[in-house]
Amino acid sequence: MLIVMNKNATQATIDAVVAAIEKRGYIARPIEGGERVSIGILHNKGSVDASHFSALPGVKEVIPVTRPYKLVSREVQPFNTIIQVGDIRIGQGTLTMMAGPCAVESETQVMTIAEQVKKAGAVIFRGGAFKPRTSPYSFQGLGEAGLKILAKVRENFGLPVITEVMDDESFSLVEAYADIIQIGTRNMQNFSLLRRAGRSAKPVMLKRGMAATIDEWLMAAEYILEEGNTQVILCERGVRTFVNHSRNTLDISAIPVVRRESHLPILVDPSHAAGIRDQVLPLSLAAVAAGAHGLIVEVHHKPEDAMSDGAQSLYPSQFQYLCRKVEAMARFLSENGEPPAGGVQ
Amino acid sequence: MLIVMNKNATQATIDAVVAAIEKRGYIARPIEGGERVSIGILHNKGSVDASHFSALPGVKEVIPVTRPYKLVSREVQPFNTIIQVGDIRIGQGTLTMMAGPCAVESETQVMTIAEQVKKAGAVIFRGGAFKPRTSPYSFQGLGEAGLKILAKVRENFGLPVITEVMDDESFSLVEAYADIIQIGTRNMQNFSLLRRAGRSAKPVMLKRGMAATIDEWLMAAEYILEEGNTQVILCERGVRTFVNHSRNTLDISAIPVVRRESHLPILVDPSHAAGIRDQVLPLSLAAVAAGAHGLIVEVHHKPEDAMSDGAQSLYPSQFQYLCRKVEAMARFLSENGEPPAGGVQ
Amino acid sequence: MLIVMNKNATQATIDAVVAAIEKRGYIARPIEGGERVSIGILHNKGSVDASHFSALPGVKEVIPVTRPYKLVSREVQPFNTIIQVGDIRIGQGTLTMMAGPCAVESETQVMTIAEQVKKAGAVIFRGGAFKPRTSPYSFQGLGEAGLKILAKVRENFGLPVITEVMDDESFSLVEAYADIIQIGTRNMQNFSLLRRAGRSAKPVMLKRGMAATIDEWLMAAEYILEEGNTQVILCERGVRTFVNHSRNTLDISAIPVVRRESHLPILVDPSHAAGIRDQVLPLSLAAVAAGAHGLIVEVHHKPEDAMSDGAQSLYPSQFQYLCRKVEAMARFLSENGEPPAGGVQ
Amino acid sequence: MLIVMNKNATQATIDAVVAAIEKRGYIARPIEGGERVSIGILHNKGSVDASHFSALPGVKEVIPVTRPYKLVSREVQPFNTIIQVGDIRIGQGTLTMMAGPCAVESETQVMTIAEQVKKAGAVIFRGGAFKPRTSPYSFQGLGEAGLKILAKVRENFGLPVITEVMDDESFSLVEAYADIIQIGTRNMQNFSLLRRAGRSAKPVMLKRGMAATIDEWLMAAEYILEEGNTQVILCERGVRTFVNHSRNTLDISAIPVVRRESHLPILVDPSHAAGIRDQVLPLSLAAVAAGAHGLIVEVHHKPEDAMSDGAQSLYPSQFQYLCRKVEAMARFLSENGEPPAGGVQ
Repeated sequence: MLIVMNKNATQATIDAVVAAIEKRGYIARPIEGGERVSIGILHNKGSVDASHFSALPGVKEVIPVTRPYKLVSREVQPFNTIIQVGDIRIGQGTLTMMAGPCAVESETQVMTIAEQVKKAGAVIFRGGAFKPRTSPYSFQGLGEAGLKILAKVRENFGLPVITEVMDDESFSLVEAYADIIQIGTRNMQNFSLLRRAGRSAKPVMLKRGMAATIDEWLMAAEYILEEGNTQVILCERGVRTFVNHSRNTLDISAIPVVRRESHLPILVDPSHAAGIRDQVLPLSLAAVAAGAHGLIVEVHHKPEDAMSDGAQSLYPSQFQYLCRKVEAMARFLSENGEPPAGGVQ
Repeated sequence: MLIVMNKNATQATIDAVVAAIEKRGYIARPIEGGERVSIGILHNKGSVDASHFSALPGVKEVIPVTRPYKLVSREVQPFNTIIQVGDIRIGQGTLTMMAGPCAVESETQVMTIAEQVKKAGAVIFRGGAFKPRTSPYSFQGLGEAGLKILAKVRENFGLPVITEVMDDESFSLVEAYADIIQIGTRNMQNFSLLRRAGRSAKPVMLKRGMAATIDEWLMAAEYILEEGNTQVILCERGVRTFVNHSRNTLDISAIPVVRRESHLPILVDPSHAAGIRDQVLPLSLAAVAAGAHGLIVEVHHKPEDAMSDGAQSLYPSQFQYLCRKVEAMARFLSENGEPPAGGVQ
Repeated sequence: MLIVMNKNATQATIDAVVAAIEKRGYIARPIEGGERVSIGILHNKGSVDASHFSALPGVKEVIPVTRPYKLVSREVQPFNTIIQVGDIRIGQGTLTMMAGPCAVESETQVMTIAEQVKKAGAVIFRGGAFKPRTSPYSFQGLGEAGLKILAKVRENFGLPVITEVMDDESFSLVEAYADIIQIGTRNMQNFSLLRRAGRSAKPVMLKRGMAATIDEWLMAAEYILEEGNTQVILCERGVRTFVNHSRNTLDISAIPVVRRESHLPILVDPSHAAGIRDQVLPLSLAAVAAGAHGLIVEVHHKPEDAMSDGAQSLYPSQFQYLCRKVEAMARFLSENGEPPAGGVQ
Repeated sequence: MLIVMNKNATQATIDAVVAAIEKRGYIARPIEGGERVSIGILHNKGSVDASHFSALPGVKEVIPVTRPYKLVSREVQPFNTIIQVGDIRIGQGTLTMMAGPCAVESETQVMTIAEQVKKAGAVIFRGGAFKPRTSPYSFQGLGEAGLKILAKVRENFGLPVITEVMDDESFSLVEAYADIIQIGTRNMQNFSLLRRAGRSAKPVMLKRGMAATIDEWLMAAEYILEEGNTQVILCERGVRTFVNHSRNTLDISAIPVVRRESHLPILVDPSHAAGIRDQVLPLSLAAVAAGAHGLIVEVHHKPEDAMSDGAQSLYPSQFQYLCRKVEAMARFLSENGEPPAGGVQ
């Protein structure tokens, strides 16, 4: 942390800031000789709260210097975390394809889709039993009945399942059925839920919040790791901007930045970024090219009848085409020595 | 809802869209004669999911036409909702001042601040016992011990208290102590928490999410009303934008828009919008001038020692000055026949 | 400027960075003793380009510390700049009201509106003769014929006029007719135009760009001052964000920030921020309450027939009401010792 | 265009809106029978200005339905525009690589870089002689001397050159030297400059504005086509958002959307999107994967000495690596039948 003083700051105000820093147990290093004095704060652990100092007389600005996260940081763990789910290894340099409908609507629907996405190349099945919906009047998911249907997918097709958890109350229930527990965009900073997920033995996929910086996202993951669960997958799904031709704006540079800052695997959800089916293929190819460890894609056999997110769901044949493309690209990247790549598992 | 067809859409694709609309129980009204055909969807209740139709062949775009909310809408209830808390009536045309520290740190701290903000003109005391913090390593609040301190504020100073609830687990506990329950920015779309709040007998203050549209915010409030609790206060606290000179960007036009669309009272939190003490007074004056029903302001007697948000907390003397100013402005607006106004309670 | 090194940076890489700094004539001040080394750069004038150093081996980040602007800065000129236009003094602590139609459409239209806005309290008349339009098929303004109509407004009503200039080519023409030259949002970083304006003897009003930070805005003003023209008025008109209930999001905290950082007067354009008539009054009151030196408001006697921006134009009677309100508020703020205030000129 | 009336709109207000529509020469189609009346506006050409109607009594909202652009639209020209520059054909399905320094600094610098980027695979050389800089104190480019150096690149290496034009005044000069004229981000809505470019016989590359929607961007291109110059290349370079880990946020979905809406070729500038060298390779791969017709990349042989944008400039060896990768990817995509692809020219 660096404290920048006003140009006309007196020696007394500078001394007072130094004293305030030392009072909190840090070391103060004034940097003199330029237009104005700056004071560096040295410390050995944790992060320093800017607001302790920005309020002091003579202080113009307080500038954070080091990253606030620890356990998720590549500085702490240089090698990649690999999440093992059955035979699937997420983050190893191979591409992990997850697919399925937005919501579990019925056994027939789910079984139909599961068969098709498995055939196409998906290795993990997605489907929501508890659905966070903007409107209380929209379909809210089948709840436990939906989870039971997901369990049948696992039995029948040997596909591990990922499904969203919305609250502490239903956590144990979801945990009992899911192979990977998803924490959604709107809950990225639901800290109680993050802590609960940190006490789970199951892997957790943490989607990025709609307006979250990467620092905030990694700090949310830090909550989970800090409670003991190190099996965290990050998922970029677009952020909210002024752009109106897609539902969200896929932040493609988040992929290399997260890979550099953290050892955790990062997947991309092109469906929620796009919001419209036509953009899912180009966004998927872009995500894989930029180094994503996998994709999570919405697929529905009858999107026009889907109870949610129909417009962004691919038809099974489109998903099959997508898998062929991204698989080929991942293999190509792998052969060309690119870090992201590898064949589809 | 309006469906816009491609220019070259055939009669068969148009008929198919009409059939799809009717299959879902709506009435289809094709509008012909221009460059392309559009099809209006008529229905009597609830909202229509765009994704049912945007996927159909020949469809260029689906445009929502009517608002999705009902119970929070001024079309349903034309007169203002007034929230009664003790003798205080929020939303009646008078200005309600809430103030206190970001976090409850100790009894001495809270009592010192409570005495000062009451003297200055605050009628409701704020203070967090459970704190949502970006970092798991930051101070997380005193929990129940903090709530007990808040209860003493009520006893000693006769000030009702508002405090944040973070999860279902601690809801009953917070509910037992609080006069108004706050749902924070990061939980605006924590739908389980909203439903729980909807079953409470206590008034709820719902802060706007960092990237929430007004529609999404009002829909979140709709969750609470739909469960039976009609005592909801909305709180604008700034949204996240590219702007970097303030912590968030106060969306001042949200005030007249919410007042036109909804009957619920709207307060403003200038402290979190600003992020820095200097901007709190001008933002407060602006919010009152634009029609806010009240303000919730962070005040600390020693901001430089505060355990959170020190930089944006006012000194008690600054809060006293602010109260004098906004009170005078509210009185002035009231005398000049402006809807927002009224004297401070 | 502060250079933050990687944790594991060797002494050799640190020495190389120090050498690179000194090679450019700056003084390097390494700060050791913490988790990692940082290096302060001291210099006496101008700004340092971060990109010279961020590319060096071992560098994690380069953090700017001081502001890049000089002539517009309050550190250089502590007292307010006051712009004299006829008898009007902008920025003196009184509120300056500018009003008129978006575009000059005809002599009758302009004369009708001018009479009404003058009666209501406007002291400067606005109207576009050259119009920057998103579409080449929209009305582009009357050009010189429009300027001549504006000249008649000045003659007949004694109102100085402000009008927009779009390019170097027409600069001298616009300059000959205008009392204040407006540089629009889309041209905020048209540096050739800024330089040309810097060589003019007429005051310039510089609107903020749609996605401009305050630093960029002030640097654009710096271009004008640097060429010799110190008569610059800044105009906040909203920035582009995800928010969709207003045309732009009025950045109300820009007012106190600009007033603290710069000595130049700042006006607010509530019409373009709002985009819809209903929001103009509350935004105007908010802007004045937050310390704006004046307002520039679109008014049309028949908005439904206006050739541009009809939806955000006030009816003359609405503008009269607005003037009464903001005048009263400005007087009130002035009497209550608030810096922004003063009666309407 | 669709006009949505208030629920309680009387027949008289509806009739008045219908009359207002017909008065302007359009056809009005009221849609009755639902919760409220909507009125469709039918017309045969041009776009309708929403503000004519949004101001009328009883109107709740005006919703645009059709696109405002014509000449740039794929509905008008279904086949791709191909820009021929010497032997290079941009937009044909092959990938066009442009590269060079941000600014022309000296003949030695430019010749050194040109030799290296040509060897790596660039087919067009970029370099700025007139530089738009945020600060008037930054290096502003060599002007005509810089253009002469670029001419030598063309002579010596047979590379066509692209360089930026900043104003009308220097347009003819730049036009005389350049093979492709670049209009930069800050000038995207400098309509005078767009018109002048529309009268040039040289191809124009139009970069997207920092806060421009795709509609606004295509409308800016429409200005150029409308004046007669159909040789327009679009260039996506990132938009400004709250995201702070990259200089801008590359809007990857703009690529498929522009390709669907328009027949003009679209390139991507990964250097300005990234702002930092590390992200240039992943963004480049992503852009090509999503269907970009080419890339324009900043390369400098000594980025640490560059007079601008050093941090985002690649070393020649990095650019060589990038070319190998994107070439291989383009070839791969082409062989796999993907529309974007093709080998590097």
